[in-house]
Amino acid sequence: MEPLYVIKIGGNIVDNPVLLTECLQAFATIQGQAILVHGGGKLATSMAQKMGIEQTMIEGRRVTDIETLKIVTMVYAGNINKNIVAQLQSNGVNAIGLTGADGNLIQAHKRVNNAIDYGFVGDVDQVNEVLIQSLLSNGMKLVIAPITHDGNGQLLNTNADTIAQSIAVAMAAQYQVHLIYGFEKEGVLLDVNNPSSIIAKIDQPSYAKLKEDKIIFEGMVPKIDNAYLALVGGVQSVIIGRAEKMNELINGTAGTTIKI
Amino acid sequence: MEPLYVIKIGGNIVDNPVLLTECLQAFATIQGQAILVHGGGKLATSMAQKMGIEQTMIEGRRVTDIETLKIVTMVYAGNINKNIVAQLQSNGVNAIGLTGADGNLIQAHKRVNNAIDYGFVGDVDQVNEVLIQSLLSNGMKLVIAPITHDGNGQLLNTNADTIAQSIAVAMAAQYQVHLIYGFEKEGVLLDVNNPSSIIAKIDQPSYAKLKEDKIIFEGMVPKIDNAYLALVGGVQSVIIGRAEKMNELINGTAGTTIKI
Repeated sequence: MEPLYVIKIGGNIVDNPVLLTECLQAFATIQGQAILVHGGGKLATSMAQKMGIEQTMIEGRRVTDIETLKIVTMVYAGNINKNIVAQLQSNGVNAIGLTGADGNLIQAHKRVNNAIDYGFVGDVDQVNEVLIQSLLSNGMKLVIAPITHDGNGQLLNTNADTIAQSIAVAMAAQYQVHLIYGFEKEGVLLDVNNPSSIIAKIDQPSYAKLKEDKIIFEGMVPKIDNAYLALVGGVQSVIIGRAEKMNELINGTAGTTIKI
Repeated sequence: MEPLYVIKIGGNIVDNPVLLTECLQAFATIQGQAILVHGGGKLATSMAQKMGIEQTMIEGRRVTDIETLKIVTMVYAGNINKNIVAQLQSNGVNAIGLTGADGNLIQAHKRVNNAIDYGFVGDVDQVNEVLIQSLLSNGMKLVIAPITHDGNGQLLNTNADTIAQSIAVAMAAQYQVHLIYGFEKEGVLLDVNNPSSIIAKIDQPSYAKLKEDKIIFEGMVPKIDNAYLALVGGVQSVIIGRAEKMNELINGTAGTTIKI
């Protein structure tokens, strides 16, 4: 099977024009099929501040009221997505920017949680793998903003890590999928203050131990849980590491590899 | 040849949720291939006001400084485009929302005008008819935001009427193209205060006379000039009229038809 790289870049990359440009230049050199999923939370927060719309975060997740949904749609699907696409085009990559609503790429439902009302937040139901395969085979690289829809006209704010994982799993029947989480650190670190303390490989027993010892905690836990969902779903490999080192992450010379 | 309807809806439709919904319901009933091009100027202006960014208009055209470019990209390509796509999806239309940067759909260059600096405003150079044909033949309807790119990473604000005309001309070799300008009036009126005074047909001699007599003036002049560019470029018909009456405009029972 043909390889497909599904690469998620986090907010700290997207918010930093220098890092973003380095990252997109690396993306442009990838041989073969690739999909880029981006976040952009910090830019959304600063836009909300400028407009005087208060933001509520619960356990690191944004509560998305109707005004905040408008902001994240504008910032993610408008400003960030289109600037990434234009930059990739200038690097010779035929990028196409999409949300989950476009071509019914990702259908989701509004999260129901009796304890916490997250607002217009979506949990993924299905990925349109026929459309993805068609666009990829037409020589395009996809750039996906973390906005989905419910099929009834409602846009929904959706976690970008989850979108990347859902796409990776959906494409695993047709491609040899590698899921890469690019962020601002070298990988999963034994000591957060020591960038060279990268854990090269994590398997399920070592993950349990690292969680128990509180070496892996907070935001890294849902990321690695997502990684395991992807692996169980048929994804070949999941790698977490510095976004600008995309090529080293792909060829296995950088970052942390998550294994079953 | 198969018919293709290229339909532009103006700011007064996009800014009004009730009119927009009616208009999208009509769009959903169109048999055959269709492309929707939207503006959204009033929403961009109100967003700029909220953010304290002053807007300058010269002869009805927005001067697009870098902050204004960010706003129009967010409003047109983010908020408006994705809400239209989600609404169409809920009406059973497999819509895909794109800017000119996506898949290199529309390449443009920054306008050079020694007298007036319009800022980041683009004039269209080329339309990617292969991509459009491929998406249409995959059963999708295109929703296009009036943002283009220059191929060097720069997004550009571009007149939506011109985008609609450029797409219509580019597709005229492959389809029997009908270009429809939908707005908030019944058509071109003999008397602006009398909605029933629609001019059913305008040809080049009558257009010259109507301009001379100042019956056609201001914003309508570039619209009809665009219509003639389209007709000269091989487009079958150009119709101007009330956006919600899309089906009547298509079957020729409403609006003003522009002829050579």
